[in-house]
Amino acid sequence: MNHIDLLARLAVESDNRIVLLVLDGVGDIRTRDQSATALDRAELPNMDALARRSALGRIVPVAQGVTPGSGPGHLALFGYDPTDPEADIGRGVLEALGLGLKIGPGDLAARGNFATIDADGNLTDRRAGRIPTSECQRLVDSLQADLSSFEEADIEVVAGEEHRFVLILRGNGHSAEVADTDPQKTGVPPLSPQPMKPGAEPTAALLAKIIARMNYVIADEPKANAVLLRGVSQLPTLPQFPDLYHLRAGAFAGYPLYRGVAGACGMEVVPCGKYFHEMVPTVRENWSRFDFFFLHVKQADKAGEDGDLKAKIQVLEKVDAALPELLALEPTVLAITGDHSTPAPMASHSWHPVPLLVHSPVCFVDDCQELTETAATQGHLGTFPACELMGLLLANAGRLAKYGA
Amino acid sequence: MNHIDLLARLAVESDNRIVLLVLDGVGDIRTRDQSATALDRAELPNMDALARRSALGRIVPVAQGVTPGSGPGHLALFGYDPTDPEADIGRGVLEALGLGLKIGPGDLAARGNFATIDADGNLTDRRAGRIPTSECQRLVDSLQADLSSFEEADIEVVAGEEHRFVLILRGNGHSAEVADTDPQKTGVPPLSPQPMKPGAEPTAALLAKIIARMNYVIADEPKANAVLLRGVSQLPTLPQFPDLYHLRAGAFAGYPLYRGVAGACGMEVVPCGKYFHEMVPTVRENWSRFDFFFLHVKQADKAGEDGDLKAKIQVLEKVDAALPELLALEPTVLAITGDHSTPAPMASHSWHPVPLLVHSPVCFVDDCQELTETAATQGHLGTFPACELMGLLLANAGRLAKYGA
Repeated sequence: MNHIDLLARLAVESDNRIVLLVLDGVGDIRTRDQSATALDRAELPNMDALARRSALGRIVPVAQGVTPGSGPGHLALFGYDPTDPEADIGRGVLEALGLGLKIGPGDLAARGNFATIDADGNLTDRRAGRIPTSECQRLVDSLQADLSSFEEADIEVVAGEEHRFVLILRGNGHSAEVADTDPQKTGVPPLSPQPMKPGAEPTAALLAKIIARMNYVIADEPKANAVLLRGVSQLPTLPQFPDLYHLRAGAFAGYPLYRGVAGACGMEVVPCGKYFHEMVPTVRENWSRFDFFFLHVKQADKAGEDGDLKAKIQVLEKVDAALPELLALEPTVLAITGDHSTPAPMASHSWHPVPLLVHSPVCFVDDCQELTETAATQGHLGTFPACELMGLLLANAGRLAKYGA
Repeated sequence: MNHIDLLARLAVESDNRIVLLVLDGVGDIRTRDQSATALDRAELPNMDALARRSALGRIVPVAQGVTPGSGPGHLALFGYDPTDPEADIGRGVLEALGLGLKIGPGDLAARGNFATIDADGNLTDRRAGRIPTSECQRLVDSLQADLSSFEEADIEVVAGEEHRFVLILRGNGHSAEVADTDPQKTGVPPLSPQPMKPGAEPTAALLAKIIARMNYVIADEPKANAVLLRGVSQLPTLPQFPDLYHLRAGAFAGYPLYRGVAGACGMEVVPCGKYFHEMVPTVRENWSRFDFFFLHVKQADKAGEDGDLKAKIQVLEKVDAALPELLALEPTVLAITGDHSTPAPMASHSWHPVPLLVHSPVCFVDDCQELTETAATQGHLGTFPACELMGLLLANAGRLAKYGA
């Protein structure tokens, strides 16, 4: 039996509440030049006190050495096998979610680039000189105006940053098995959208028509006179939190992508602020409505991506300051971890195991005195795959029945 | 998706070099009578200094409690699932590789024993009284002389130690699905080679003919007047390092078996000395030719197999003395580990987790002060399956792309 099926079989109802606080990218590394991590350096009196009555450990997001994007990183935290192709959230869908768009079960989403082609139709710039976002918006507006009258599909075009946009085909019957049209080099024409599996031919043909119409609309634009499509995808059909775990789950996230992923898992997305201290009051207001609270703090990842250790420390200290308000709600289980590490010296996501704190009446109070990468290495919870975390949280909440007699 | 497919999907090109130094059988145990391991006792100033700026951990070769042979032990280090039947290197092939023979894709190899049968054809000694190696060589010479004129197959017979030899059938079209002829007891005749799967009948019939001819040639020998065949096998078709990981890989190993296994994985085998200090200059000479360097030091395993802790300590100290020359090459990633433990008190391979050191600019400098079994238990890398090591090495070398967006 795979892991999530086992959990689904054992999950039971209870009044006990679980809070999963994800400090995105919280894990960091010690290097020759950075002798201590953000968690090492930050002054976190509330977190330290909590650590002294909790169990620590570490999670491996996907596998040793594998650096996850935000999609797989969160799917693993929510209990799904992030390497299961069925759980794959494609690039087009992720981009759309990141822009705050709603993606329904049958909808098709693709990432678009504005590009430049010469008189012969060969690409001269795959990003149209990275046109300003305002320029992108103007082009998208004219595309949308034209495509509103397109009869064969219900189309949305939404501007992203610079040369990027998202194309959405609403409704059922489309196939996501269509290859990218970006040839990944200049001097050649864009590829025509090719079906990658039998049955995808109609969608490929439809996309070819849409692309032709888009190119026609912008044909006389001086810089961006062609479009490229990548990452054609649909929302995966994931087992939903209420069915899977018997959890009424609420997502409190300040950024669209994380709301989107949580929504795809069957959580209700609750509008809230971008910062932890803004989220906590909203959590309090919704305390009776949910059994599971996913709180997402983006800023730690952002500081890591910027290579800014000082900013990362400040994010953590700010979270620590508001932590007592969350503790005051007395969740049965409170877990604090990240979806991956974003070490400041690397200024990017990484594969390094992520520290984890689990507090509950039965978590096992280990000897760890603080939540740091190094302390967590010695904790009671050990180091284990991130997709097993949900089982541990359910168990600590008394929400997982005995397996077998 | 299985692990190696995931790595294959994510591996990217880079100029960063990886050195994997395998101290065969390095892991040892503490017992009532042996209060410290070879790593505990050895004076390893260079290894200690390296450990202080590296990450430590442990690998489990196959699974808890499973003691690997050299084949599965190394396949796991190279990223292959050692329990995958497709990755199985059969006994005949391993024996042939161990004798330094080249085994091509279609070749069939089997282990042979000289045995003794009585006038009724019943086995009286399955090992022909462990005849001396020189005697074995003489018998093999006469077999080879006779079988050179055998028309139905291109045959090689090569002497091993004592009563052992290897039989090789060159070329394609043979099946490895033929059962052993050794009945594993005396007082009965040898078994005839039986096909184990449909399609193996011609090979089984061919082997029966070869065995009959061999038995005829040595029929009048006083001690060794029959042959037994075991472990009929072919080289597995493993995904190759250059395709799998985008690595130009060189193998530096003093013993044939390890060269053979590395060659089967797509590494180029570079002739070199048997001792670590002899290998390093060869590695230096070939530094620009490879991205991945597999260095195999056999002597630690041999000392362990001999139950000789003192010898094992000396092997480690000798490696330590030459370590600076390897470090001078400044590989981006240097990993030091073993394919399994060979505890001196057991005088054999064992299942105990093997200490691992990984040094890279982004490895996470943990608090470990030396490379020992005990220190490694506390290291940042944790304890994980050996077949995940390659992912970690690729990641540390910046050779693994992010998974998902």
